[in-house]
Amino acid sequence: MSTAEQPTPARRRGRRPGGQDTRAALLEAAREVFGESGYEGATVRAIAARAGVDAAMVNHWFGGKEALFAQAVLKLPFDPVQLLSDLMDGPVEELGERIVRRFLTAWDSTEGGAFPALVRSIAGHEQAALSLKDFLIRHVLENVVRHVSPDRPELRAALCASQIAGMGMARYVAKFEPFPATGIDTLAAAVGPTLQRYLTGEID
Amino acid sequence: MSTAEQPTPARRRGRRPGGQDTRAALLEAAREVFGESGYEGATVRAIAARAGVDAAMVNHWFGGKEALFAQAVLKLPFDPVQLLSDLMDGPVEELGERIVRRFLTAWDSTEGGAFPALVRSIAGHEQAALSLKDFLIRHVLENVVRHVSPDRPELRAALCASQIAGMGMARYVAKFEPFPATGIDTLAAAVGPTLQRYLTGEID
Repeated sequence: MSTAEQPTPARRRGRRPGGQDTRAALLEAAREVFGESGYEGATVRAIAARAGVDAAMVNHWFGGKEALFAQAVLKLPFDPVQLLSDLMDGPVEELGERIVRRFLTAWDSTEGGAFPALVRSIAGHEQAALSLKDFLIRHVLENVVRHVSPDRPELRAALCASQIAGMGMARYVAKFEPFPATGIDTLAAAVGPTLQRYLTGEID
Repeated sequence: MSTAEQPTPARRRGRRPGGQDTRAALLEAAREVFGESGYEGATVRAIAARAGVDAAMVNHWFGGKEALFAQAVLKLPFDPVQLLSDLMDGPVEELGERIVRRFLTAWDSTEGGAFPALVRSIAGHEQAALSLKDFLIRHVLENVVRHVSPDRPELRAALCASQIAGMGMARYVAKFEPFPATGIDTLAAAVGPTLQRYLTGEID
């Protein structure tokens, strides 16, 4: 996909407010089709057809099926495609700390409401939440891992995911004091090396 | 408390089956009183009075308020008092691995049903689950931490709790493949050093 042809929704919104109708129609259609068919079963073509627009509009407004899913079905406080490129942008040896900082900054911005909702959905076996979990681990975390470590990328990604999910539980759900009020710098220093070892270090 | 005067419930059950009435009455009274007053507000005296037995029976049958709480209100697959003494029994430098092994062995034995139920209760702000969480962190984890590290025990305990909760999420709730089917030895080697650093290592 060419970024030159795909301004961010924010920029596009400013220039072509009428296009919001297309975006809103796609979001509504996406919620329906993902709900009916699950993440894997839903196609961009089917979503666009339901919205009555051209399939190219999905890339244009959302950057693809994955990002549309995240924005339509689950209120992620970040764009997964953007997240992946942000994480890869910087020294490999600081990747663990970058993940901690990005995770906490993004979910802190929702004032703690979005992460518990996601946990409840996953614990309740809601299909959209399970699909999101698979998507974030397979398409974001595993991609990060494969860039830095050829050795057991699935296990390394799952280990990272365990500590990341645990941070969310500690800060937003179960509230393990003093975790919720501890500064991001302190947590990046404490938890960053854990993720760094899971990503690039010895794990046996 | 004197262990000589307090055989385990299992032994006592064998020798004095009639006593089971007392034990059952205490469990029922405990569920009521903890539910009404919360963990901190409930007293052993009030629970025993509700059950119509002497307060000494709580120590006799359960080893104290904490263990009664765990057994009455939440179906923990271990006895917290026993857990604490098991964890402290062994080399300090293997404490991280011991915690991983004890955690996975205990919850694996419930075939995965008990941990998701606990997470749902905590995410749903059920008082008993929140009290259990406080109890496990304050009375078990923080006690372990204070034995090995005088430096910031609350933060170290919360960091440990974050990785322990994350293991539970990865193995029993969200199922981050291949975490659920990975052997305990592999996970002890991978995650043990994380807990060890949170317990005794540099965290800033």
